[in-house]
Amino acid sequence: MYGTAMVQASQATIGDSEFDRDTALVRRDEGVYDIDLPAGWTIAEAVNGGYLLAVLGRALADALPHSDPFTITAHYLTASRPGPAVVRTDVVRTGRTLSTGQASLYQTDEAGHEVERIRVLASYGDLDALPDDVRTSAVPPAIPPVEQCFGPKDGPAPASGSSPIADRLMIKLDPSTLGWALGAPSGKGEMRAWFGLADGRDADPFSLLLAVDALPPTAFELGLSGWVPTVELTVHVRCRPAPGPLRVAITTRNLAGGFLEEDAEVWDSADRLVAQSRQLARVRLG
Amino acid sequence: MYGTAMVQASQATIGDSEFDRDTALVRRDEGVYDIDLPAGWTIAEAVNGGYLLAVLGRALADALPHSDPFTITAHYLTASRPGPAVVRTDVVRTGRTLSTGQASLYQTDEAGHEVERIRVLASYGDLDALPDDVRTSAVPPAIPPVEQCFGPKDGPAPASGSSPIADRLMIKLDPSTLGWALGAPSGKGEMRAWFGLADGRDADPFSLLLAVDALPPTAFELGLSGWVPTVELTVHVRCRPAPGPLRVAITTRNLAGGFLEEDAEVWDSADRLVAQSRQLARVRLG
Repeated sequence: MYGTAMVQASQATIGDSEFDRDTALVRRDEGVYDIDLPAGWTIAEAVNGGYLLAVLGRALADALPHSDPFTITAHYLTASRPGPAVVRTDVVRTGRTLSTGQASLYQTDEAGHEVERIRVLASYGDLDALPDDVRTSAVPPAIPPVEQCFGPKDGPAPASGSSPIADRLMIKLDPSTLGWALGAPSGKGEMRAWFGLADGRDADPFSLLLAVDALPPTAFELGLSGWVPTVELTVHVRCRPAPGPLRVAITTRNLAGGFLEEDAEVWDSADRLVAQSRQLARVRLG
Repeated sequence: MYGTAMVQASQATIGDSEFDRDTALVRRDEGVYDIDLPAGWTIAEAVNGGYLLAVLGRALADALPHSDPFTITAHYLTASRPGPAVVRTDVVRTGRTLSTGQASLYQTDEAGHEVERIRVLASYGDLDALPDDVRTSAVPPAIPPVEQCFGPKDGPAPASGSSPIADRLMIKLDPSTLGWALGAPSGKGEMRAWFGLADGRDADPFSLLLAVDALPPTAFELGLSGWVPTVELTVHVRCRPAPGPLRVAITTRNLAGGFLEEDAEVWDSADRLVAQSRQLARVRLG
């Protein structure tokens, strides 16, 4: 009993969690926001692209009359580093059902020049105002129970080294997409996992922007290694996620010419397809 | 012999065709272009979204140091009408391999106000500079030979009415995705067709931007009718298409909350996956 109570008491909630604090912006002026990017969301010294998309997504939610990103596209221009950043937003159009906005995140380089890191174009709406119809042919990915999946500390998967982001995420990979970690990539371009925030905070539309870009790249299962930098990432948020862990399935169909696409589907505990994403990324060919 | 010679003589070529003339812009100033949108690319009085994306794509190809749209995202704000339009571009970043730009198309409304129709964010590169590797698990869609497929004038498909764009396109639909036209939609959210330009011009990266948004909407095979306006469309051009007709396969997995996603794959005559796209569109629920 005591143990259970402890777990419940320490469970972070939407609005009061590390993810919320670390994506919070300070409004400097109309449409202009400051943030000090923490070191906790980095991989190999670069700030994670999904986390950054959540930061920009929150800035646009403040700048636009609608609160939920229905479709958001980011072009990653230069690698973001921990430290001060400024986000500038631009309201493109406001409508009754949808509004469209643009945002950019800048950092100042060592020479004192402002460098644009990411540019985002997005249309926002109100997920809670959508009708409840579902006519979908999509089915949730088949992932074994979470107890049978593997995280960075569970053995067969390699230690994630010094990537601070690993401490903030609960990622449990489907063993059938873990071949790369054992030196035997499947060649199939698939990656599946249970996903949550390590402090137990439930998912919301902004953490979905993080979820789509948090798994190891499918390129690993295609037998490639190394950095797979995102050129462009588009996320459609289709439904407010139910409480509980998410299932994320990523697939790559076409690796060609040094680029690949990576499609993600995110399913919630109520078996609803809550987000779909696609990114174009560069690969270093072996 | 004479007949063959006639056909060859009348075959339009890349750079000298109706599509090229109708997407050509006049440079007014650095990064600013004029175009008179012709009535020939309209459906139900609105100018087709794929054609407009090709116009914006050509403007960015002129404004940026790279010529080919690797990934281009458009948000459709208001319906474009035939008549004068101005395109304003903005160079976001130029790099060795990729450059990023933004463009908007504006028209002047009856009250004399400039109205933004579309905003585009894109990264460009050089398709011919890419290595020739292909490690793809994608396979071309199974479509019967073009002689066994159906266009607007071939019978079972409904006459396309007065949509002028139908005269500019060669679209031959796979009979197995034609149920909607016979009052018996499959419910499967799939649409497949052979695609080309009616004057025989071969495909290039800009006509691929048209190809992904030219088929009847998958919503028809899901039993819905009426307008399916695009909110956002992202196209990845992965390879310069070989001469000859294209195969286009469109699928929808998730129709929910009055929105659907529509994924397109475009394959060339050399069996290469030359473009992938995804759009978020609104549906009117029956």
